[in-house]
Amino acid sequence: MRQIETHPSPHQIEPAHRYIYDFADGRASMADLLGGKGANLAEMTRLGLPVPPGFTVTTEACRYYLRSGRLPAGLNAQLAEHLATLEDATGRRLGGLDEPLLVSVRSGAKFSMPGMMDTILNIGVCDATVDGLAKLYGDERFAWDCYRRLVQMYGKTVLGVPAERFEQDLIRAKVRKGLAANAPDTDLDADALRALTRHYQQTVRECTGQDVPQNPREQLTGAVRAVFESWNGERAHVYRRREHISEDLGTAVTVMAMVFGNLGADSGTGVGFTRDPATGAPGAYGDYLTEAEGEDVVSGVRNTLTLEQFGAIDPASHAALRGHMTRLEEHYHDLCDVEFTVERGKLWMLQTRVGKRTAAAAFRIAADLLDEGRIDEDEALARVSGDQLAQLMFPCFAPTAAAAVTPVAFGVAASPGAAVGRAVFDSADAAERAAAGEHVILVRRETNPDDLPGMIAAVGVLTGRGGKTSHAAVVARGLGRTCVCGVESLEIDEHAGTATVARGQAAGAVIHRGDVISIDGTEGAVYASEIPVVPSPLVEYFEGRQTEKQGPSGQSVRGADPVIAAVARLLAIADRRARLGVRANADTPADAARARRFGAHGIGLARTEHMFLGERRPIVERLILAETPQERARALNQLLALQRADFTGLLAAMDGLPVTVRLLDPPLHEFLPDLTELSVEIAVADATHRPVEPERRRLLAAVRRWHEENPMLGLRGVRLGLVVPGLYAMQVRALAEAMAARRADGGAPVAHVMIPLVAEVRELELARAEAIRVLREVDPRLTASIGVMIELPRAALTAGAIAKHAEFFSFGTNDLTQTTWGMSRDDAEGAFFPAYLEQGVFAASPFGTVDAEGVGALVRIAVERGRATRPDLEIGVCGEHGGDPESIHFFHDAGVDYVSCSPFRVPVARLEAGRAAVLAERAAQGAAVGSDTR
Amino acid sequence: MRQIETHPSPHQIEPAHRYIYDFADGRASMADLLGGKGANLAEMTRLGLPVPPGFTVTTEACRYYLRSGRLPAGLNAQLAEHLATLEDATGRRLGGLDEPLLVSVRSGAKFSMPGMMDTILNIGVCDATVDGLAKLYGDERFAWDCYRRLVQMYGKTVLGVPAERFEQDLIRAKVRKGLAANAPDTDLDADALRALTRHYQQTVRECTGQDVPQNPREQLTGAVRAVFESWNGERAHVYRRREHISEDLGTAVTVMAMVFGNLGADSGTGVGFTRDPATGAPGAYGDYLTEAEGEDVVSGVRNTLTLEQFGAIDPASHAALRGHMTRLEEHYHDLCDVEFTVERGKLWMLQTRVGKRTAAAAFRIAADLLDEGRIDEDEALARVSGDQLAQLMFPCFAPTAAAAVTPVAFGVAASPGAAVGRAVFDSADAAERAAAGEHVILVRRETNPDDLPGMIAAVGVLTGRGGKTSHAAVVARGLGRTCVCGVESLEIDEHAGTATVARGQAAGAVIHRGDVISIDGTEGAVYASEIPVVPSPLVEYFEGRQTEKQGPSGQSVRGADPVIAAVARLLAIADRRARLGVRANADTPADAARARRFGAHGIGLARTEHMFLGERRPIVERLILAETPQERARALNQLLALQRADFTGLLAAMDGLPVTVRLLDPPLHEFLPDLTELSVEIAVADATHRPVEPERRRLLAAVRRWHEENPMLGLRGVRLGLVVPGLYAMQVRALAEAMAARRADGGAPVAHVMIPLVAEVRELELARAEAIRVLREVDPRLTASIGVMIELPRAALTAGAIAKHAEFFSFGTNDLTQTTWGMSRDDAEGAFFPAYLEQGVFAASPFGTVDAEGVGALVRIAVERGRATRPDLEIGVCGEHGGDPESIHFFHDAGVDYVSCSPFRVPVARLEAGRAAVLAERAAQGAAVGSDTR
Repeated sequence: MRQIETHPSPHQIEPAHRYIYDFADGRASMADLLGGKGANLAEMTRLGLPVPPGFTVTTEACRYYLRSGRLPAGLNAQLAEHLATLEDATGRRLGGLDEPLLVSVRSGAKFSMPGMMDTILNIGVCDATVDGLAKLYGDERFAWDCYRRLVQMYGKTVLGVPAERFEQDLIRAKVRKGLAANAPDTDLDADALRALTRHYQQTVRECTGQDVPQNPREQLTGAVRAVFESWNGERAHVYRRREHISEDLGTAVTVMAMVFGNLGADSGTGVGFTRDPATGAPGAYGDYLTEAEGEDVVSGVRNTLTLEQFGAIDPASHAALRGHMTRLEEHYHDLCDVEFTVERGKLWMLQTRVGKRTAAAAFRIAADLLDEGRIDEDEALARVSGDQLAQLMFPCFAPTAAAAVTPVAFGVAASPGAAVGRAVFDSADAAERAAAGEHVILVRRETNPDDLPGMIAAVGVLTGRGGKTSHAAVVARGLGRTCVCGVESLEIDEHAGTATVARGQAAGAVIHRGDVISIDGTEGAVYASEIPVVPSPLVEYFEGRQTEKQGPSGQSVRGADPVIAAVARLLAIADRRARLGVRANADTPADAARARRFGAHGIGLARTEHMFLGERRPIVERLILAETPQERARALNQLLALQRADFTGLLAAMDGLPVTVRLLDPPLHEFLPDLTELSVEIAVADATHRPVEPERRRLLAAVRRWHEENPMLGLRGVRLGLVVPGLYAMQVRALAEAMAARRADGGAPVAHVMIPLVAEVRELELARAEAIRVLREVDPRLTASIGVMIELPRAALTAGAIAKHAEFFSFGTNDLTQTTWGMSRDDAEGAFFPAYLEQGVFAASPFGTVDAEGVGALVRIAVERGRATRPDLEIGVCGEHGGDPESIHFFHDAGVDYVSCSPFRVPVARLEAGRAAVLAERAAQGAAVGSDTR
Repeated sequence: MRQIETHPSPHQIEPAHRYIYDFADGRASMADLLGGKGANLAEMTRLGLPVPPGFTVTTEACRYYLRSGRLPAGLNAQLAEHLATLEDATGRRLGGLDEPLLVSVRSGAKFSMPGMMDTILNIGVCDATVDGLAKLYGDERFAWDCYRRLVQMYGKTVLGVPAERFEQDLIRAKVRKGLAANAPDTDLDADALRALTRHYQQTVRECTGQDVPQNPREQLTGAVRAVFESWNGERAHVYRRREHISEDLGTAVTVMAMVFGNLGADSGTGVGFTRDPATGAPGAYGDYLTEAEGEDVVSGVRNTLTLEQFGAIDPASHAALRGHMTRLEEHYHDLCDVEFTVERGKLWMLQTRVGKRTAAAAFRIAADLLDEGRIDEDEALARVSGDQLAQLMFPCFAPTAAAAVTPVAFGVAASPGAAVGRAVFDSADAAERAAAGEHVILVRRETNPDDLPGMIAAVGVLTGRGGKTSHAAVVARGLGRTCVCGVESLEIDEHAGTATVARGQAAGAVIHRGDVISIDGTEGAVYASEIPVVPSPLVEYFEGRQTEKQGPSGQSVRGADPVIAAVARLLAIADRRARLGVRANADTPADAARARRFGAHGIGLARTEHMFLGERRPIVERLILAETPQERARALNQLLALQRADFTGLLAAMDGLPVTVRLLDPPLHEFLPDLTELSVEIAVADATHRPVEPERRRLLAAVRRWHEENPMLGLRGVRLGLVVPGLYAMQVRALAEAMAARRADGGAPVAHVMIPLVAEVRELELARAEAIRVLREVDPRLTASIGVMIELPRAALTAGAIAKHAEFFSFGTNDLTQTTWGMSRDDAEGAFFPAYLEQGVFAASPFGTVDAEGVGALVRIAVERGRATRPDLEIGVCGEHGGDPESIHFFHDAGVDYVSCSPFRVPVARLEAGRAAVLAERAAQGAAVGSDTR
């Protein structure tokens, strides 16, 4: 009511100029403007839940500030008005000497984001108000505790004082009182806290030349500005690039009246989940701590109570909380987490959001909510992800073994998997031991590019500092190494080669260089012993080997089968929803059979080069060394018989489904010995007058002749097919004969012939004509679809012409990435990827997730031009991106027909193919709604 | 008149169904429909010149035939009608027993084209008419000569009998008469020719199972069909691909009443040019042969008369001819060549066209016609080409020396230049002698892919067979080797290692393996001795060293200076007309100065890597091996001083014009020794217990560390700049200090900094920020344009984002071609280029002429997106395509601002830049006219 009275001028009411919303005026759908935190607080307020009064400064104000460097005109006036409303609602005044109002200031972007300033509590306390605060709550110690916390938080987050400086002050304060350094802060009395406050102020001045403002309004605007500015912090930038969050969103700032959980035994603070976030099991779940503020719960210094125990000591608050939580879950149709505080017996809800959960819980919750009729199938699919499914498919620590051992520490689960190895503390040691065959885990305070050889050598990486976007995390994910980072309770001394557990139950335990440790990159757990690793129960299930008692995520799953059932159910839904088909990259009948068990509908890529290795290498060598057509024909004939058997096996394993055979792609010299090694061998033999077989010299001559400076850009793919007489004809003949044999056996072989590395349509014309000729020679009734890999920029650009001679396209996104970027994966990953990831050139390796702007532009061009020529052109993807969730969504949007990936990734691809259909449909609806409103 | 009477039905008059035009109904502008030959015959007829009556079957009829395999409905009827007109005009009848009509059938596409069927004479003679023919001309011998020629030509070109078979029959006929094998055909009397005709008919039957038809109408339609079908001959296909002639044009067929030059002393045949096609000098020029048909003039069996001598024996015909030639040149405003025949004192004009000419003549004629007011400046530019200018800039045989020696043979001038070396007859011999330091010329009957090593080793290639599109010609041009091919008068015995001159003045001369020979790839001449090679007089002129007495094309120029004057004049016109600027790729002050003398307006590419070689290599090695920041800084400082001097020199040489410095691009390991060689060296030393310096082992370790599988796709370009601390900063500092030094000396330095191998805008942002920082550090007043090489597909695709941080783009079309096609030039040229050129995958090497469809598509995308972001973006090309005429036209059309090429190519680029403007303007006008008519 008052608000309306104080806002009489029309321009204040005009939405474009409204920079602040009271909680009562917002709702959950306004996250764009109010951030996630502010929108959810508004929603709780709207639902009638007990939320302390407050308001949110919009992201629009932030954007204005970031653009101009100034707060928008009118913001200060609006701040004053909303503060006045808040003061009226609480009956207190910011800066008031008698009943001072204290507020918290929190950032709240649309998406939660590490690296952004989080929270400043107790804004409003200062020399002038601290006594009034003491009087108001009848607790002097409390008042000075509030003050010293303000100075600490403001000093750290607004003014940038290193946290350790305050830590040192605190320890000194305890020592001065004759307390142990790790004594609880509650042991400090009012006097000690007053002195500590002054020391903190002194520290701030020393570090920054500034003071925490004494004027509470200045504190408030300072905090708001700091939140705004933290949007542009380097870590936040890097995070947004990685997560594809727009730089333009900005953050909101929420200002809320403080309530206190540290006002005695009838006060406290806690967190709650409406379902178990670890397993997804139904039933509320949470922690409560009496006489505490929020940060104390998280820090783990004191033991928390369960929600049941909270109910025993404060049944009324507990009942109210359970009621609110039920209401929230019913309202959000999802697992919610909440933060709450009890101030002298009165429950306040401080925050809620849709809660984070483990991969296993995500599947179980989605399936349960579907069962409960709370969400529909599309929503259930939207609630899970391929990354989560992939986590459930990693080998994991044996549940019983892990359950029997307590982790010594926890950190950020930065790169999934379960790794066991000897702790090493520097890169050289890691490389040396790895070279000697040991499994090692590299333990570093933090990593930098010099650690790269060690990270490559290690099976896992463990760091004391840094989050999901730290060097260690980013590089480990890029390398596929398990990583736990930011384990702050470990004191790592690289020089001494020790990691000491500083806190928690295992405090004092020391890991020495060479000790076997285990790290769980999915959970963030660190074990000081060897934990046995077992295959994922989910994989065992897919393979038909599921034992009844195990859960898919290993030790963290309580009650196993519901998760597997949930995965199976959601995969079935995904299969129904998907437009993208899923095939597998498989070169052997065993791989093909596995892929089929995992749900692949055919083989999208059978690499014939793998069939040229092993015991057949000598035949390939003879082919390359052949000096007469007769010698060459003999070698080709031997290969023909072997290839026929290969193809027969593949066609049998995928009977009735397409098997896409790529004709030989790599440069022939890959089948020959290494030039340098062979040169050294023969030179040394000659120098020491040892005899050298003439065959060996002939081999060296051949290696020299076939040597290429840049084999990736050399004589390979269709070029080989056009230059080496009879090679492709032999392969097509083997395939044709295998089809004929399968037919004779009553099978239903479906073969596709794929021509690699085509740049110009004429190459395809020639290779295709030869393939058709050979097929007809073997049996005029045989038909095979003949298509082309699109893996060179030129093929994409000239796809219109190429489609005239191709029944299908298959994007080889690996090579396409290599040529579009002009970098070979092998050479680049060691040489400059780490630097590039650090400097933000890549958000993610373009070999992991398809580069939508560059490579993706070529994919779209090829799809469009190819279909313009041949509307029924079948288009697939057979590069490694075919199994990457984000890439799958891109391919769905680009109009691709199927993706092909390794058998192990097939379930992930199936799930994401379904999700891509759902999310694209929603985006289209959203866009349609959006355009309606214009 | 009669024609109108016989065409009463309306559908015959409707243009779409008119497949035949009498000469009187056509004109020169109808070459699309009538082919070049038919259109020019029509034009001469229209001008009132004495052309034998005839008609032309249109290209439309050909296209119909090629599409459907059938002659279009109505064609036969039209043929009958036009034949009747012809019969009326001549008073003779095709197949008539008394006064039989004989006609010639000739192909005539819009563009003349090797590989197409050319001419069949004497259609109409057969057993039934040969006596009537004899009676008509009163010459039985003549009649049988016509008959045997028909059987021979029809057998060869329509039925495909090998020419040698007729040669053998002819020799046998002479032997039977007791004549020498090389006696003139005129020594055969009527009986002998009758017998020969029968032998020829027998030969045709043996080879083909068919007869030359006895029905003259069948002869005629058979010949027409054969001409149509020859459009699809493999050689014609290859030629059209190479010359970018559309496959859809088809050819016309011209049918003309025969006139005979072989009817006695008052008959003859000749060719004429309205100016000297060798030098461009004014004045008619030609050859005449009495008692001969056209082919006899060309074959060179008998000595021809000059036009003056012709005037002496037949003043009337000569005067008429001179009149007609003058009339034609006035009409066509260009050098015309003509073929004519005198039949018993009556002159007939059989063909005319704008005449071929040497490069020197082209310039002189264009300038002369401009002087004479016949053509304007634009037309003068259109009449010459960069390829011709380039020919004038090749080193050539010393004119006096060449003039003193008569070539032993002539062939097709397939790849320009002057080459001197020892004749070798196989590839291995060539490679061996070349390895020993000899200059060799590879002499082969024809070449195939096995000859490639020999062609690479040789300075020139000489073949006995094949034209401009033969393997030898195509590959030699690709390799930049001088080549004369198709020297049919040389009998090449590769086994014996000899080449014997079979005809002409030098008949009987033998070139043996190891003899020094000289070949002129611009003229097609072969000399059996060493001719001294001198620099091109035109280059001497550009360099300011022009001597007054020499002509620019060496021995073939009579009267030197006019050609140089013409070139200079046309270049000046081109400079005025050009929109594209021309800069040079130059790395040294000397190159820069030469480029400036050749007319470059700045340096478009200074490659700093060349500055890192030679005596500086040890410093670069120290930089790479540096183990401490201090060692690295020391090496960088040494390089700094040297680079500063480099840049000062370049800026001085190009004072006032832009100097574009590309920061270091190639992988650092290019400055280190070869891995295999160094490995062998150390392994051998170790095996033989010789001491190895520790420095050497350290070097090997570094070589191993920096070794890359695909250096082209590895750590190079901006990647180096971002990963090797201080490297780019050192280079920018050197440039900035050089600018400051030049300014202090009163110079006007204009520096551009170019960042190579950018794929992603962030790379550019980082490198640019560093460059700007360093520039400001050196002198805050210094400014330099900072831009980027567009040489990766991704840079082109994301050009919109990149242009935000780039003041200029420069296309590195070499690398862009490598990545767009996925092939490295070095690896591909030996491995599969020859096969690809042969199989028609490439029309020309995409490294020589920009691939407009693939690479060009990326160029257009980058120009469009870059300019959308930054309308004033300066866009250049600094790859080797910058000096290629066809590519220059593409770049003009694509909206590029300048090209940069090697200093030597600068005049070519200037000329083509002007021509591109003229031709694009004409094309636009043509398109506008075209759209007006719709």
